[in-house]
Amino acid sequence: MKKIVAFDIGGTAIKSAIFDDKGTLQEKWSFETPRQNGDLAVFEGLKAAIEEKGLKKDDILGIGIGVPGPVKDGVVEGAVNLGWEKVDVKKQLIEALGYDVPVFVGNDANIAAVGEYSRRSEPIRSMLFVTLGTGVGGGIVLEGTMHEGATGSGAEIGHMRMTDEGIQCNCGLYGCLETLTSATAVSRLMVEAIEKGAKSSIADIEYVNAKTVFDHAKNGDETALSVVDYVCDTLGDALAKINAVIDVPLILIGGGLSNAGEFLIHKVQASYEKNAFHATRGAEIKLAQLGNDAGIYGGAYLVMNHG
Amino acid sequence: MKKIVAFDIGGTAIKSAIFDDKGTLQEKWSFETPRQNGDLAVFEGLKAAIEEKGLKKDDILGIGIGVPGPVKDGVVEGAVNLGWEKVDVKKQLIEALGYDVPVFVGNDANIAAVGEYSRRSEPIRSMLFVTLGTGVGGGIVLEGTMHEGATGSGAEIGHMRMTDEGIQCNCGLYGCLETLTSATAVSRLMVEAIEKGAKSSIADIEYVNAKTVFDHAKNGDETALSVVDYVCDTLGDALAKINAVIDVPLILIGGGLSNAGEFLIHKVQASYEKNAFHATRGAEIKLAQLGNDAGIYGGAYLVMNHG
Repeated sequence: MKKIVAFDIGGTAIKSAIFDDKGTLQEKWSFETPRQNGDLAVFEGLKAAIEEKGLKKDDILGIGIGVPGPVKDGVVEGAVNLGWEKVDVKKQLIEALGYDVPVFVGNDANIAAVGEYSRRSEPIRSMLFVTLGTGVGGGIVLEGTMHEGATGSGAEIGHMRMTDEGIQCNCGLYGCLETLTSATAVSRLMVEAIEKGAKSSIADIEYVNAKTVFDHAKNGDETALSVVDYVCDTLGDALAKINAVIDVPLILIGGGLSNAGEFLIHKVQASYEKNAFHATRGAEIKLAQLGNDAGIYGGAYLVMNHG
Repeated sequence: MKKIVAFDIGGTAIKSAIFDDKGTLQEKWSFETPRQNGDLAVFEGLKAAIEEKGLKKDDILGIGIGVPGPVKDGVVEGAVNLGWEKVDVKKQLIEALGYDVPVFVGNDANIAAVGEYSRRSEPIRSMLFVTLGTGVGGGIVLEGTMHEGATGSGAEIGHMRMTDEGIQCNCGLYGCLETLTSATAVSRLMVEAIEKGAKSSIADIEYVNAKTVFDHAKNGDETALSVVDYVCDTLGDALAKINAVIDVPLILIGGGLSNAGEFLIHKVQASYEKNAFHATRGAEIKLAQLGNDAGIYGGAYLVMNHG
């Protein structure tokens, strides 16, 4: 039986997995992202990983790869975290391996989206996946297909501008969703509130991070709660705007902030319902299920569905 | 040679056309929407139109139909302008005809989008179509496929909320794009400005409509120009938000306001570039080409591409 190989390439580690030809996970592991020799070091690392598992050309049904940058037709347009300019991932990997196998490549947020999509127990045609971490990312699956987008960025929902009065985002714009609803934003908003004199049971600004803010909000800290409410209201408003355009029945929330669980989901859903166009009300907002494994499952999905 | 029949059903008229099996327009006409007997009157009208043109079962490759309401898998979920609740358009038409032919149904804005898409001279994979008329509507084509949406509404971009301070929209929400950038909005904003004492060469509020506001703006009327600038800035901002999500390379503007031509387009593009995420900058904003015929071309496209 042939195997599917999946790699989710990050700036520090490469999450790796082997699936059987039905998409059942057989083994997963992780190794440090090789950086020493530029672009090619990564591909030598992927080759070594495949060989260590004893896989040869005829054993491999296909390889699915996630990369932290815009991907269009198998080519990465640049990946800051890897120090990459434009890289033809498919071509480079086949050259490193020394043989031709089917290779499918996707933006990391997009393959995480199809990964989550592929493992839903209930059948669904379309969905939006949102990650709330250091930044805010997104991926869209429409009728079972990963939405790659014209520039390969897919759904860069973190850079939807929400206000004219916000701070400047890393992207250069002001008031991006990412500056208002990321884990980074939760910390910043809490620190700003405390510095302005708001009272909180978090005694020292040193202890402020997204987790402590959510924990204290759950325990009734009013300042933490007002930050959390603002973040959830803003996210629900953004999701309502997005779903006025794409009209999907399911929105999954992942990333570090999603560890806040149903406490977060209930608040976001309430704001969504208040702000959504009537036809799109009732779309379900749920927690993503796969955590850091979403990308490798997405890699397997790309192979099984031929990209 | 078999023919394609297309109908674009509106509240007052049904635009109709016959295409050859290659999609070349052979004849188009229009007739009043039959309303006297409820739902079924429309289908008897479509049957009569087909018979008047001498078309029988074996002459028809397929029938493509646009309807002013959400359409999911051939079923309209309700169409206020037609007085319809849920109607299975495909089933009703086949029953009225008395024979089975392929029937494809789409929301009117969505089939207008694929109509515009189908007649582009340059090849393009994805696009957004925006109509600026009494309301603001939209349709998305992704990789050549009409985006129907989970509820059949497709891209209800007119009901993306742009501000918390706006007036109430017909949909019940406040600050919808439709309340800020429709032809209706242009008139309202101009009347409000004049009533607040702004000077304008439009002497009488009676003469204010979207056309006169744009005409006077072009001739240097400062109040009219400030209204037009506000509308175009807001639309460009909205398109930037939308394209952070869907990432399409082309946005076509149609509907009554698009008669303002390149004067409108240049202002909207400028605002778009200012507000867009860097990856999506450079998406082209252009005038739609087909006017009121977009829907019948879209109907033909649905038949040729089997829905």
